[in-house]
Amino acid sequence: MKQVTIVEMGLRDGLQNEKVILSLDQRIYILQGLANAGLKRIEVGAFVRSEKVPQMAFTKELLSQAQELKKQKKILKDVYYSVLVPNLQGWEDATPLNPHEIGIFASCSESFSQKNINCSIDESFERFKSVIALAKKRKVKVRAYLSVCFGCPFEGPVSEKKVVELAQRMWAMKVDEISIGDTIGVAHVGQIRSLFKKLKKKIPLKKLVGHFHDTRGQALANILAAYGEGVRTFDTSLGGLGGCPYAPGSTGNVATEDVVYMFEGMGISTGINLEKLLSLNHEVESMMGKILPSKVSRAGLLSPLGAVIK
Amino acid sequence: MKQVTIVEMGLRDGLQNEKVILSLDQRIYILQGLANAGLKRIEVGAFVRSEKVPQMAFTKELLSQAQELKKQKKILKDVYYSVLVPNLQGWEDATPLNPHEIGIFASCSESFSQKNINCSIDESFERFKSVIALAKKRKVKVRAYLSVCFGCPFEGPVSEKKVVELAQRMWAMKVDEISIGDTIGVAHVGQIRSLFKKLKKKIPLKKLVGHFHDTRGQALANILAAYGEGVRTFDTSLGGLGGCPYAPGSTGNVATEDVVYMFEGMGISTGINLEKLLSLNHEVESMMGKILPSKVSRAGLLSPLGAVIK
Repeated sequence: MKQVTIVEMGLRDGLQNEKVILSLDQRIYILQGLANAGLKRIEVGAFVRSEKVPQMAFTKELLSQAQELKKQKKILKDVYYSVLVPNLQGWEDATPLNPHEIGIFASCSESFSQKNINCSIDESFERFKSVIALAKKRKVKVRAYLSVCFGCPFEGPVSEKKVVELAQRMWAMKVDEISIGDTIGVAHVGQIRSLFKKLKKKIPLKKLVGHFHDTRGQALANILAAYGEGVRTFDTSLGGLGGCPYAPGSTGNVATEDVVYMFEGMGISTGINLEKLLSLNHEVESMMGKILPSKVSRAGLLSPLGAVIK
Repeated sequence: MKQVTIVEMGLRDGLQNEKVILSLDQRIYILQGLANAGLKRIEVGAFVRSEKVPQMAFTKELLSQAQELKKQKKILKDVYYSVLVPNLQGWEDATPLNPHEIGIFASCSESFSQKNINCSIDESFERFKSVIALAKKRKVKVRAYLSVCFGCPFEGPVSEKKVVELAQRMWAMKVDEISIGDTIGVAHVGQIRSLFKKLKKKIPLKKLVGHFHDTRGQALANILAAYGEGVRTFDTSLGGLGGCPYAPGSTGNVATEDVVYMFEGMGISTGINLEKLLSLNHEVESMMGKILPSKVSRAGLLSPLGAVIK
């Protein structure tokens, strides 16, 4: 059977950009719900300074409890946790907790790099070189995020050449996966097809990930287009949680529910139980005190008798 | 150059399902704005009983003034007006005003047909037989809407066989175009591909139209999939105006802006000026007293210098 891999971003890329700050217990509850709905790859948080990103406070405790839940068999052992690790300090905090994977990140525009991580693109590559080396030694997988690949809120259009060059640099550093980010949700199908056609000439397709925000409503069509180019892994966020603090008006990652609805409808397995995800969405909406963007969650599913399942 | 045809639904399918009732002047203003933005096919209203559908009151006056604007060259002569005509009475009201095209409609489920137009599917076909005959005699084009082609809010799933059979019946009656409606926005890419593959075996592709509501966020991906099957005409609604009174929670047609953004990005011409459309969207939002669903309008365009154009 055809299948795609969904990497759940809600607990990190999602929550990190939301005003409401969830407690450790709430995030553990969501994590269990995600695993219970069939998500196998979950980014659980970021090892960043909590005075800077209070939404990500207690990521250490979260990862620790998440590992404990696996030991207690409350979360299946084939659920893999990822954490964002921006620097050596993050790596040192994360590594005793044995994350399956770490995430590192760089930007395709100098301005975005400066605003987001306060260094140049080259400096960011320099910075994570040592982290990658340490991860490799411990056989921890490394996924690299490349942001603003289709447009930058400060510099406008981003050249494909630049994106391909940076992705190749990441690939040469032996990262396991490169997540191609439309951070401000500006890409359209034309750009997606064009860029992935170029990327896949240089980097194996199974190492490329589509990471699209839905700011201009294009994300699902973009995923369909990227799938058409052979991409099989997509980053999505429960309910469409998130945004981008450096791109005013940006909305979150495309909603996991809406992506699952499309792929399952195409007969492509995601391994995810949509009804469980919808039910989790409504609980998270209560926690956040707002309706989340996912349209499938809002409208519900059509049952065989026409009733709507929410 | 590759191109698609966008048929603008906002003034009819859109407004007819909105609570706020716009005045004749406001609708004329929108019509001019749409024509000015490059829309060439505009459904301007419906000849229905205004006590039943107050949003469509004064369609007669609207069409009359719209024709006058053409005479005054305030609207280009290659802008074509369509009006919904549910029965002989509607036809008689519309015909002195020389609409370029009339719209008739039928449903794919008996329950939806009863709720929507208070008759069986067979009765609805009977009813518009005479309207079609009169239109043919006057060389007025006829577009037929087929609703709930992918799912019914009362009966659940709808069989493809039924849809193909009804579309063929319409085609046999020599309508000029058949608009395949996902009235409650439940279709996914899998259904779209499967149904259009079957339809195009029976009916010339250029006579088939995709009419998708965005209730579950799938509409743009569905349009991309239908385009992939060879469909080249799509019904869309300014800002995503609309809904469906018989399908609770349904949202409007897919937003014209979001569709134009995708196609133009793919290098496929729509003939529509997106900046003008965005500006019109914001005026309509003022009239409606609410933010419309179009995400492109909300987020704006990214200018070459990174500034956002709204």
